[in-house]
Amino acid sequence: MTTSSRKFSFQLKQYIPVFDWGRTYTKHTLTNDLVAAVIVTIMLIPQSLAYALLAGLPPQMGIYASILPIILYAIFGTSRALAVGPVAIVSLMTAAAVGNIAEPGSPDYILAALTLAFLSGVFLTLLGLFRLGFLANFLSHPVIAGFITATGMIIAASQLKNILGIDASGHNLLELLTSLVSHLGDTNFITLIIGVTSVAFLFWVRKGLQPLLQKFGLKKRSAGIIAKTGPIFAVAVTTLLAWGFDLESHGVSLVGEVPRGLPPLTMPSFSLDMWNSLIGSAVLLSVIGFVESVSVAQTLAAKKRQRINPDQELIGLGAANIGAAFTGGYPVTGGFARSVVNFDAGADTPAAGAYTAVGLAIASLTITPLIAYLPTATLAATIIVAVLSLVDFSILKKSWNYSRADFIAVTATMLITLGAGVEYGVLSGVVLSILIHLYKTSKPHTAIVGQVPGTEHYRNVLRHNVITHKEIVTIRIDESLYFANARFLEDRIYDLVADHPELKHVVLMCSAVNEIDFSAFESLEAIAERLKDLDVTFNLSEVKGPVMDRLNQTGFAEHLNGTIFLSQHQAITSLKTTFKPDA
Amino acid sequence: MTTSSRKFSFQLKQYIPVFDWGRTYTKHTLTNDLVAAVIVTIMLIPQSLAYALLAGLPPQMGIYASILPIILYAIFGTSRALAVGPVAIVSLMTAAAVGNIAEPGSPDYILAALTLAFLSGVFLTLLGLFRLGFLANFLSHPVIAGFITATGMIIAASQLKNILGIDASGHNLLELLTSLVSHLGDTNFITLIIGVTSVAFLFWVRKGLQPLLQKFGLKKRSAGIIAKTGPIFAVAVTTLLAWGFDLESHGVSLVGEVPRGLPPLTMPSFSLDMWNSLIGSAVLLSVIGFVESVSVAQTLAAKKRQRINPDQELIGLGAANIGAAFTGGYPVTGGFARSVVNFDAGADTPAAGAYTAVGLAIASLTITPLIAYLPTATLAATIIVAVLSLVDFSILKKSWNYSRADFIAVTATMLITLGAGVEYGVLSGVVLSILIHLYKTSKPHTAIVGQVPGTEHYRNVLRHNVITHKEIVTIRIDESLYFANARFLEDRIYDLVADHPELKHVVLMCSAVNEIDFSAFESLEAIAERLKDLDVTFNLSEVKGPVMDRLNQTGFAEHLNGTIFLSQHQAITSLKTTFKPDA
Repeated sequence: MTTSSRKFSFQLKQYIPVFDWGRTYTKHTLTNDLVAAVIVTIMLIPQSLAYALLAGLPPQMGIYASILPIILYAIFGTSRALAVGPVAIVSLMTAAAVGNIAEPGSPDYILAALTLAFLSGVFLTLLGLFRLGFLANFLSHPVIAGFITATGMIIAASQLKNILGIDASGHNLLELLTSLVSHLGDTNFITLIIGVTSVAFLFWVRKGLQPLLQKFGLKKRSAGIIAKTGPIFAVAVTTLLAWGFDLESHGVSLVGEVPRGLPPLTMPSFSLDMWNSLIGSAVLLSVIGFVESVSVAQTLAAKKRQRINPDQELIGLGAANIGAAFTGGYPVTGGFARSVVNFDAGADTPAAGAYTAVGLAIASLTITPLIAYLPTATLAATIIVAVLSLVDFSILKKSWNYSRADFIAVTATMLITLGAGVEYGVLSGVVLSILIHLYKTSKPHTAIVGQVPGTEHYRNVLRHNVITHKEIVTIRIDESLYFANARFLEDRIYDLVADHPELKHVVLMCSAVNEIDFSAFESLEAIAERLKDLDVTFNLSEVKGPVMDRLNQTGFAEHLNGTIFLSQHQAITSLKTTFKPDA
Repeated sequence: MTTSSRKFSFQLKQYIPVFDWGRTYTKHTLTNDLVAAVIVTIMLIPQSLAYALLAGLPPQMGIYASILPIILYAIFGTSRALAVGPVAIVSLMTAAAVGNIAEPGSPDYILAALTLAFLSGVFLTLLGLFRLGFLANFLSHPVIAGFITATGMIIAASQLKNILGIDASGHNLLELLTSLVSHLGDTNFITLIIGVTSVAFLFWVRKGLQPLLQKFGLKKRSAGIIAKTGPIFAVAVTTLLAWGFDLESHGVSLVGEVPRGLPPLTMPSFSLDMWNSLIGSAVLLSVIGFVESVSVAQTLAAKKRQRINPDQELIGLGAANIGAAFTGGYPVTGGFARSVVNFDAGADTPAAGAYTAVGLAIASLTITPLIAYLPTATLAATIIVAVLSLVDFSILKKSWNYSRADFIAVTATMLITLGAGVEYGVLSGVVLSILIHLYKTSKPHTAIVGQVPGTEHYRNVLRHNVITHKEIVTIRIDESLYFANARFLEDRIYDLVADHPELKHVVLMCSAVNEIDFSAFESLEAIAERLKDLDVTFNLSEVKGPVMDRLNQTGFAEHLNGTIFLSQHQAITSLKTTFKPDA
């Protein structure tokens, strides 16, 4: 191999990880991957149909969204177990975004969903290429937790209409519930029976099927995996019932005719108007999807001491979404439930995902005619049971115990999501987290310190019995200095000077200062200048290496009327030579 | 005095500082204040007229905006030397905001300006009452510097039309210059001569008048102060010329009839529609005005070891703006030039401001008929000379030398202000500063550390020759842990574990961690959980007191499979007991 081709191959491996794991693919990994693929396929059929329904799209789009995207992720993604496809939250966000610009079920609605997947794919790919994955970190854990819980509640509420067999709509919890109550009189009782039974069955599948299978002699792990395929039984049984008893004539809503065949070739819209109306939603949905996906991928990778590359994950998810846009899908991401099943079932490489895609393609070719008789209530039950596991109020208690600021972020995100919808919920959560962080760092902890007698340690005068000097004040600031707290520092020091008329030397102890930005640097200059006017020296102590490098670069030390001391003890020893201590 | 009345008086002093300094007012301070007031009044007459012109308002509104607002600030503000009134940047921002919703010169335009002052006043007062002054800190120094320079350029360019005697308009520099060039053929040469001569004269007044006055025997300080009144001569001479030679008939634009009298009682609009269109601008303008004002106030207070209270300043400026709204003014703030003159002229208390107000009221009653003949070119010259002192490109070089991140913030703010206008300029500056800060802290500096032989110090393995152990890795993180870097920390530690197959113990050295928020805490829990699965212990060392308190509160230490060590040396000594060092 020549140097240039080796280099090329290195780059290919970097951007297309399949060239990495593909080389070492063995018969053993093939078997593992195939088993995992079969399990995941069976699990995905009802889930994909259900999430398409949640997104307000024809059910087959959920299946389509699980075929090419999985293959593209297998090529470009770095997680070995992540299963990509429609997920609950992204489906709800799709419904919210697309519902703003078209009537559910209309051709425009479908076009908008394809376009949303396209924009989301392009956005994710760009983030990945520019290595901007860190932007997703602006979603703090409390915000994500609050958002997921609130979204789970909205999704569950949105599916109640399908369980009751009535019409209802609304963009937030209150609207939804009001609408449900006002239509309660139209309840179709056969639908209700199917729905409630399915919910009960699915809850039992979650808790009771695995122990039952173990009783029948299956090993714990196999029992656990097979239990995940339980929903397919609810689908099969209710479909048979609907067909056998012609439930449609009794007013039970069925999925209806679904075209048989492989995913069609589709085109997203290239109208700038539509892009304009969707781009904001595409950004939010991409970020939420990415955060969900990457945390699943990371959890699974860590279990096998493998690693994922978040920027490459963006490219993988981007490719998957672009793929969805051109093959009749809608926005997708790495899902928690399916990935865990994939992992537990033994998937060794992303090839397991590709086999799942083949399985779904076969399903799409063969079983679609049967789906026509599937009651929507069954799908609604699948969704409700899946999303209720997302609802977790313990975050309220945990964050309350940890810090009030984080509690405020959780609560606000939750209430705004419930009250004003998913997009406002995420946005306000992000803004609030950032504001809280800036607020906290804008009023950092400071302490006047003095010498602990007989030592070279300097501690807070309020907490310790220490030696001080009325002509020297040392203030320790426990935060990096940057624009949000630069003025605070100025205020604090000017107040000190105003309060201590005998003051001759101010020492700023910088042991906790990891960075000084330009604003803070200008503040230090301003402080130095003003103290000079008052014949007070301004000194620094315990400045860290990188901070010192930057200060040196500017010649700050030269026009300072004080000194930059290596240690606080040096500072005091040197400054107090001119006078005697008070005590 | 009873306890309750003493308490009441204490609260009054807190919210209405006049009850503080008013008690100690003497004849000496009265004299000082009166002298300062006369100087400032003479300086303010042309300035107030000019800034009203810049805001697109009738000239008398500039005078009105300097009367009641000054008195209200004197009552509620905390700075003893700050002079409140119309300033260049706020006038331009007023023009930008009000120009969006009404034709310049129309009654609606004036109403909108009054309403803007009202909204700004209410907003500032609310910020002050809720002690939210720290919000202004989000404007970093580089952003402010870039914004001021760019605004100065826009203002100067916007006044060129008055110097040339032509029509031109535009919201950004490019539009303005294009418009100017296309109307260049309409230049009125008499106007041009007046304009250029005034500009030259005013520049000379800035540089040359003070030395000249000193030659005539005045002391340096008096000469400096009197030189500030120079612009009144340009006003007087050009007014006389315009009157004497009937320049209006030669196409020279004059200020025209100005109603004589005290400020009228006016009402801002209470239409919600208008509030909606103005509130965003009011917020931006208030914050910019507050930042300008508080930094002037702080500079002057520090010179006399006095202090200002930023939250109370908000209330003072809020009252001033509300006052402006009801007395025919427009948004005001503390101006740099006038405050420095006030301070240098010896103003001892805010009463100097009140006397200035009286001076301006007298002017408004007496000299307004004369103003009719004042050429607008003279006012434009006043503005140009004033704002060119704001233009300072050295910030580009200084920030470039200090850090690229700050340089990007300056440049972007400047370009966006010039290219897209003042409001976008400020907003994008703020957003960019915050993003840069979050970016920097989201990828904090980390170091693998080892023991410096023969000491208890632990330093970066890349910079020092230190002892390490293949079964222990210590990572030091040089930043507080919060949501933006929580995932980074997880990534870093999982990568470490993936890279060191023999690893048994991870130590996180927290000497630079000032805070751990809930997101970061959950990340620590996740790290602990995953390392436990891999039989690697997770240990912390050198955790600061307040951080430790919070961790203890959650019982974190109890389900950790490692230990929280007081010092790094303890950690290594204790962990290495099980095996021998590598080298």
